[in-house]
Amino acid sequence: MPDKRAKGLATLKEVMGDTYVEQRDKTINRFNAPLRSFIDENCFGDVWMRDDLDRKTRSLILISTLTALNRPTQIAAHVRSAINNGATIEEIQGTLYQTISYCGVVDAADSFRVAEDVLREMGLFDQWSRP
Amino acid sequence: MPDKRAKGLATLKEVMGDTYVEQRDKTINRFNAPLRSFIDENCFGDVWMRDDLDRKTRSLILISTLTALNRPTQIAAHVRSAINNGATIEEIQGTLYQTISYCGVVDAADSFRVAEDVLREMGLFDQWSRP
Amino acid sequence: MPDKRAKGLATLKEVMGDTYVEQRDKTINRFNAPLRSFIDENCFGDVWMRDDLDRKTRSLILISTLTALNRPTQIAAHVRSAINNGATIEEIQGTLYQTISYCGVVDAADSFRVAEDVLREMGLFDQWSRP
Amino acid sequence: MPDKRAKGLATLKEVMGDTYVEQRDKTINRFNAPLRSFIDENCFGDVWMRDDLDRKTRSLILISTLTALNRPTQIAAHVRSAINNGATIEEIQGTLYQTISYCGVVDAADSFRVAEDVLREMGLFDQWSRP
Amino acid sequence: MPDKRAKGLATLKEVMGDTYVEQRDKTINRFNAPLRSFIDENCFGDVWMRDDLDRKTRSLILISTLTALNRPTQIAAHVRSAINNGATIEEIQGTLYQTISYCGVVDAADSFRVAEDVLREMGLFDQWSRP
Amino acid sequence: MPDKRAKGLATLKEVMGDTYVEQRDKTINRFNAPLRSFIDENCFGDVWMRDDLDRKTRSLILISTLTALNRPTQIAAHVRSAINNGATIEEIQGTLYQTISYCGVVDAADSFRVAEDVLREMGLFDQWSRP
Repeated sequence: MPDKRAKGLATLKEVMGDTYVEQRDKTINRFNAPLRSFIDENCFGDVWMRDDLDRKTRSLILISTLTALNRPTQIAAHVRSAINNGATIEEIQGTLYQTISYCGVVDAADSFRVAEDVLREMGLFDQWSRP
Repeated sequence: MPDKRAKGLATLKEVMGDTYVEQRDKTINRFNAPLRSFIDENCFGDVWMRDDLDRKTRSLILISTLTALNRPTQIAAHVRSAINNGATIEEIQGTLYQTISYCGVVDAADSFRVAEDVLREMGLFDQWSRP
Repeated sequence: MPDKRAKGLATLKEVMGDTYVEQRDKTINRFNAPLRSFIDENCFGDVWMRDDLDRKTRSLILISTLTALNRPTQIAAHVRSAINNGATIEEIQGTLYQTISYCGVVDAADSFRVAEDVLREMGLFDQWSRP
Repeated sequence: MPDKRAKGLATLKEVMGDTYVEQRDKTINRFNAPLRSFIDENCFGDVWMRDDLDRKTRSLILISTLTALNRPTQIAAHVRSAINNGATIEEIQGTLYQTISYCGVVDAADSFRVAEDVLREMGLFDQWSRP
Repeated sequence: MPDKRAKGLATLKEVMGDTYVEQRDKTINRFNAPLRSFIDENCFGDVWMRDDLDRKTRSLILISTLTALNRPTQIAAHVRSAINNGATIEEIQGTLYQTISYCGVVDAADSFRVAEDVLREMGLFDQWSRP
Repeated sequence: MPDKRAKGLATLKEVMGDTYVEQRDKTINRFNAPLRSFIDENCFGDVWMRDDLDRKTRSLILISTLTALNRPTQIAAHVRSAINNGATIEEIQGTLYQTISYCGVVDAADSFRVAEDVLREMGLFDQWSRP
């Protein structure tokens, strides 16, 4: 188990980035510790380490899945993970474009806004969007 | 527009298979015709023809997205589209495995059952699942 | 309260039809009685008796709302209530058509199927859909 | 297509108001442009131009539908569209009142709050709510 | 880990009953095995073994939670687990009654039907519902 | 009815606390009055006064149910009601821990954050979380 967890934390850093992990470490406490352990072991120590899907595909799948559920905080997190995992802005846009027809304009529009904000924060938006 | 629609129908056949399309053609009527036109033009004549994502990735994205919404009829359709678009059973399984942690065991379990049924119907399950 | 309930039951008959109410009366028991009382008093003895919206509009609102939630049993009930309240098939179709863009093709398609089945059961579909 | 789009933009102005459209025009960019085109063509250039439902009914349907999904940004937009399309505050209140029994107090309460805020912003609330 | 799993399987039997577990064992295969392992380790080998809530409360919580999501297969399973964990029919009814106001009549009504069917199958309904 | 309502308001104070009720009284107006009446009569004047479940269990059920729906405002309200009804922080944590497996990490994580904030606001967090 300690080994599984250590590998999970390494994966977490690769997927979410150093800043995210530092911020996360500062906020652990007795209340959320069982949640964090679950995520460390099952998400980053298991799902994200499996080789049946590449990580970029996992991120794009999550962006669409979380759009269907309209969960902005996690959509932001996985636009970030998609970039960290090598996705282009066009691939993120294509993923969101698909949700318009399948999930409806309401949820798609919310995700387009969230994704734009994250890409701006990451300093990637202005150059890309310039004509 | 007629051209867009013709290309859409060709894409629909590639993605969903001939049997699906024949069955679909038999059930069109004055009531569902506007829905079918929307799907022909916007899903198969647009989304599925875009080149910002490959079709296999689109199918896997939809399997997860529809799991989050618990929509069995459409999950079945896109397990089928995933196979038609070149996905392996391992990739479908990996996509569903990811939904366990992110969407919860309830919705994941329903999709595992639906996917197994479709793979059996397509005659792909027994050989694959043999040890 | 008894008066409120009596008025509610009269409204229920007008909105859902005699057959629906007879079927419903046969299945009441100690377990579902509190649910039925709630519905008699709050839905049919209150909401459906208010004059801030006409009943046809209430039915169309519910068809769309229940499509967003993908609840087939109740969608069927309110396609029926829409017809009982004077809606045309075109108005039901227009309501469902609007859900395609706002709720996505998945939920819209499920509702189109349910609505078609109910309209057939009511003996209204064939003549209407004939070219 | 250009004609469809032009008609759509005229409809958009009538439904959502000039301020909304000006604000929207300022924020278009390469990332959200495909979403905006979809909405212009399919929502405002199609759904909102159909004559099978009047626009006030469409707005009320959306207020209820979006309440079922708990999507505050869009609920606000369609309280606004309801007023622009001739709905009274009583009709909006009646629509929300119906969601209490059908969607539950949680989602209904969130929508009542959002609607009150929008009506205040539009300068319509104080006079109406005065005894 | 093998110990965790063995304890999980013992808990599973207590919570869901022998028949459920036998049926479940017959349907395990290469496709659903990872899902089953997740459930064995995380649900029955962890959640259901924790002592921060008694098992009856867990079952009632799940009946309400699954009603909010409208997931009939799992609602049926947890009406069964509630009885196995010592809940009375009155407690199940009280749990469902609370969902009427909080989740709305639509989802509550579906769960009342599912629960009634399960209680009948378990041979508990007729005597209880007799006046 | 006036008696039912008076009892409901007494229950509301016990469950939600004096501050909550004072704040609520200040914001009643002609628009939200029908919603408030519904809640006073059906939630606090009925559901919360029934003796088929104790109030602490009702609060824990709602925390999980609202997590499944991802409704932060109401989750906050019922973490508060749980404490008022005698729940320990361990019981709230155990309820949320169960949602991780059943509702997925996304919704569980949002609720853990909301619950932590409320417990801090109530001045209960720091002492409890100290090692």
